[in-house]
Amino acid sequence: MRQGIRTLVVVGVGLIGGSFALALKRAGFVERVIGVDRSQDNLRRAQELGVVDEISQDLAQAVADADMVLLATPVGQMAACLQAMAPVLSPDTLVSDVGSTKGNVVRILREALPGHLARCVPAHPIAGSELSGAVAAQYGLYENRDVVLTPLPETDPAAVETIGALWRACGAHIAVLDADEHDRVFAAVSHLPHLLAFSYVNLIAGQDNAARCLDFAATGFRDFTRIAGSSPEMWRDVTLANRQALLAELRDYQTELDRLIAEVEREDAAALAERFSRARQVRTVWYQKFLRK
Amino acid sequence: MRQGIRTLVVVGVGLIGGSFALALKRAGFVERVIGVDRSQDNLRRAQELGVVDEISQDLAQAVADADMVLLATPVGQMAACLQAMAPVLSPDTLVSDVGSTKGNVVRILREALPGHLARCVPAHPIAGSELSGAVAAQYGLYENRDVVLTPLPETDPAAVETIGALWRACGAHIAVLDADEHDRVFAAVSHLPHLLAFSYVNLIAGQDNAARCLDFAATGFRDFTRIAGSSPEMWRDVTLANRQALLAELRDYQTELDRLIAEVEREDAAALAERFSRARQVRTVWYQKFLRK
Repeated sequence: MRQGIRTLVVVGVGLIGGSFALALKRAGFVERVIGVDRSQDNLRRAQELGVVDEISQDLAQAVADADMVLLATPVGQMAACLQAMAPVLSPDTLVSDVGSTKGNVVRILREALPGHLARCVPAHPIAGSELSGAVAAQYGLYENRDVVLTPLPETDPAAVETIGALWRACGAHIAVLDADEHDRVFAAVSHLPHLLAFSYVNLIAGQDNAARCLDFAATGFRDFTRIAGSSPEMWRDVTLANRQALLAELRDYQTELDRLIAEVEREDAAALAERFSRARQVRTVWYQKFLRK
Repeated sequence: MRQGIRTLVVVGVGLIGGSFALALKRAGFVERVIGVDRSQDNLRRAQELGVVDEISQDLAQAVADADMVLLATPVGQMAACLQAMAPVLSPDTLVSDVGSTKGNVVRILREALPGHLARCVPAHPIAGSELSGAVAAQYGLYENRDVVLTPLPETDPAAVETIGALWRACGAHIAVLDADEHDRVFAAVSHLPHLLAFSYVNLIAGQDNAARCLDFAATGFRDFTRIAGSSPEMWRDVTLANRQALLAELRDYQTELDRLIAEVEREDAAALAERFSRARQVRTVWYQKFLRK
């Protein structure tokens, strides 16, 4: 095992953390995985399914001997986890996470592990599904997916290299971004559309003719609103964590709608056709590229 | 052929009109289909593929002997077609269409065929795809799909019954709505999301970090923007045809976004979670029902 690690601790053994453990085991990049989770039931299932080798509900004890700790809990629990780990963490242990927002993770790491930043590599795997829990863990979840690493200025390049190699062993492609840039990009391509979809469903649901509208909603509605079925707790946390970038996007979107409304009001057929053509062109080119990924 | 018709003229032999002809032929509900189209190439292909039995580029001649004329052209060409047909249409000939907006079709029919309204049954089949032309015509396109009929007060109930029977023979479910109500419902569940998706893609494409954003756009972006790949010409026409209902929806959507922005600004975690939960609940219940259709 030239590039791998010996002991991995996964904190929060769900779809994301569990799939990372499974993929690394299959690739032979880890010897021993310890799962830590608030739910004893979930831990037992993870062990039965071979997602983890050992289980523990004592985080401090579990991480004492770890080469890497992956925090795969909801972001709201991360600070408490790091505080519990801090006194016992050995200086070489790599610390990473899987959160959808990164500026807040950098802040939490700076507060909880100020002396350990050289070994901290915040990460965001662009993968997921509507399923959760250890039973959802699967080989291949990260095959051909992007994983964005957002190292701190203090992070040791060798730590970035090792975490990158582990994700590549899972089949992922690695990108490195500054945490703030990451948050701006994902505000635009992921967080904003979620908020737009939630808002759209709420608008329709609140109309006098809601029942009739929903009766006639078809495939366009289905795809446009798919992400409005996402976890409310997760999206509350993401929205608050990435508040500034998201507010900028929301306001820009309103300005974009103001322009469209003005064109509709003055029945400007040429401007509307041009607006729709631009969007179709961008979307079509993007989709062809996405399919080839 | 107790419920069927003898001669059907399909004006505009594309996905929608061609699939209607194919389904009726298979069901044995029509004896003879005449295709009329501006494109001679498209007509020849339609005949080769057995979508139509005869072809013509002389609309007036073709409709003289028709039991039913289905207008399946873009809405912008409908008035000219009706004017060409008006002098030769026999009093019994049924006239229908397939447009996504119905108030405008009702107005066009009143102007072009004021003495023929008893035989006019505007219709909107809720089906389609991104493909077009006679080659896209397919059996089964209307299987289990909704078709909304919006008869005029002057329309003979027997005409509604016959058009309904033909669509049912294609496998469709029939709903009857007032044209204005149809346009309000589809402004909400179809036209608004198209405009929101077009606007969203244009916003992202216009940002300084557009290339990087599109690099990291994934499955959420893919589904949310699918409808932004739709025909600019069709959506220009739909937008203008359903202008009033769409403007009301667009303004209500802006108000919905104002409320969301206020909650994000004051970091109201409880209100955001509640807002997202409501949307998820509505979307989940809707989707379960949609899957059972």
